[in-house]
Amino acid sequence: MRWIRFSTDDRCAYGLLDGDAVMEISGEPWGTPAPTGSKYRLRDVTLEVPVVPRTFYCAGINYSTHIREMAAKRGVQPVFPEKPDIGYRANNALIAHEQPVVIPVDATEKVNYEGELVVVIGKQAKHLSAADAMSCVYGYTIGNDVSERTWQRGDRTFWRGKNANTFKPMGPWIETDVNLDTMTTIVRVNGAESVRFKTNDMIFDIPTYIAAMTRYLTLYPGDVIWMGTDGTSPDLRHGDVVEVEITGLGMLRNPFVRPTN
Amino acid sequence: MRWIRFSTDDRCAYGLLDGDAVMEISGEPWGTPAPTGSKYRLRDVTLEVPVVPRTFYCAGINYSTHIREMAAKRGVQPVFPEKPDIGYRANNALIAHEQPVVIPVDATEKVNYEGELVVVIGKQAKHLSAADAMSCVYGYTIGNDVSERTWQRGDRTFWRGKNANTFKPMGPWIETDVNLDTMTTIVRVNGAESVRFKTNDMIFDIPTYIAAMTRYLTLYPGDVIWMGTDGTSPDLRHGDVVEVEITGLGMLRNPFVRPTN
Repeated sequence: MRWIRFSTDDRCAYGLLDGDAVMEISGEPWGTPAPTGSKYRLRDVTLEVPVVPRTFYCAGINYSTHIREMAAKRGVQPVFPEKPDIGYRANNALIAHEQPVVIPVDATEKVNYEGELVVVIGKQAKHLSAADAMSCVYGYTIGNDVSERTWQRGDRTFWRGKNANTFKPMGPWIETDVNLDTMTTIVRVNGAESVRFKTNDMIFDIPTYIAAMTRYLTLYPGDVIWMGTDGTSPDLRHGDVVEVEITGLGMLRNPFVRPTN
Repeated sequence: MRWIRFSTDDRCAYGLLDGDAVMEISGEPWGTPAPTGSKYRLRDVTLEVPVVPRTFYCAGINYSTHIREMAAKRGVQPVFPEKPDIGYRANNALIAHEQPVVIPVDATEKVNYEGELVVVIGKQAKHLSAADAMSCVYGYTIGNDVSERTWQRGDRTFWRGKNANTFKPMGPWIETDVNLDTMTTIVRVNGAESVRFKTNDMIFDIPTYIAAMTRYLTLYPGDVIWMGTDGTSPDLRHGDVVEVEITGLGMLRNPFVRPTN
């Protein structure tokens, strides 16, 4: 099933997507969804971020090539994580499919994309084993972990380097039926392929992260876990359009704009 | 005005607190609160965390004595922040007044309190100057930024060192009328005073933080900003009770428990 969160002139709701047809439901897909009887065409509604999470988790460094290439860019030795220490991002930065990433006027040129698989939690979960971990997963969406590298390195936290307004595009929808092992993540800039990697080729996979996390914390329905990215990004400029496609899931597209004042 | 968020058998709501009397409202205090007509006594309701924020901001190091004493504990030179880089905490860790902080079974002995003033945002805000910054503040509450120092230093992120379940007590209520310059923060362990500092003696004060943050991000009603702590904490053990009092605001009390398996 493919679920969108959408808005019209008078409401914001979830809908089941079938081709171009949207069947509105009350509540959330992972709750007890009930059809409201309202139907729309996809082109007549505005896509919203698929969920505003209670807690916004993000794995950060979780693919080998990304770690090697980022280290080479900085002229340092690559350091691989020894265990799945989850990180965080901020809800203020979320934007939907097709909404513009607005680069702050005082950002440096080092603005990069990071195309990521996003896990959407559907059940409250604590103390899951790796074998049981996937039982709390409802579905998947796509994220772009936009980063201003100068701020990311120089500030004490990731607050503006990764969490400035509009730096976290997520969407376009939640897909419940995927085959992780056959998925490929492809990032395009202005239509030209920039990065391609096997989506599930993670250092610590989804069950490993969920088992580690739920030893110390409770996951709630609607929480999201961004799983990290592979490869590296060119520096993005005003007018660039970035597409993050994950095969079998969908494609998240956002233009980048840079106001001059 | 003093607002509590409370639950009864059949509802969770905000209420205006006057002595022991609770007058229930619909909606949120910073919205368009309207009395529902229901009244309770404080002792007959359960206090909940005063707000579950959309984004949970936390200043981290923001008082001089805390930085000097923490550096001395670790045998390193103190490093003072050069600018107000805001950090984050996680909603999963929030608990209310009187709820127990549960120390994970595999935590080290280095479990500490940090008593903090919490700013509650009441209006959507972007691009505020320091002079206008306080216009988005609705009121204040109290936080205890519980930390497991070994994990805080050794992990790649603060995920379990500061954000394990129950590590973020907040409450007991939101107070709208305070005089920041006359407030004192006092932390007691088992009734004995442990730390005392002037609440507003921050390295970067509230207007400075809000002006810096809203240059890059939008604050939303219900967001919270924890303002950091001064002094240091003894290592806390099973059975300890920690009270964080801020004069003119209230007192947040939580027992610490440590299951043996």
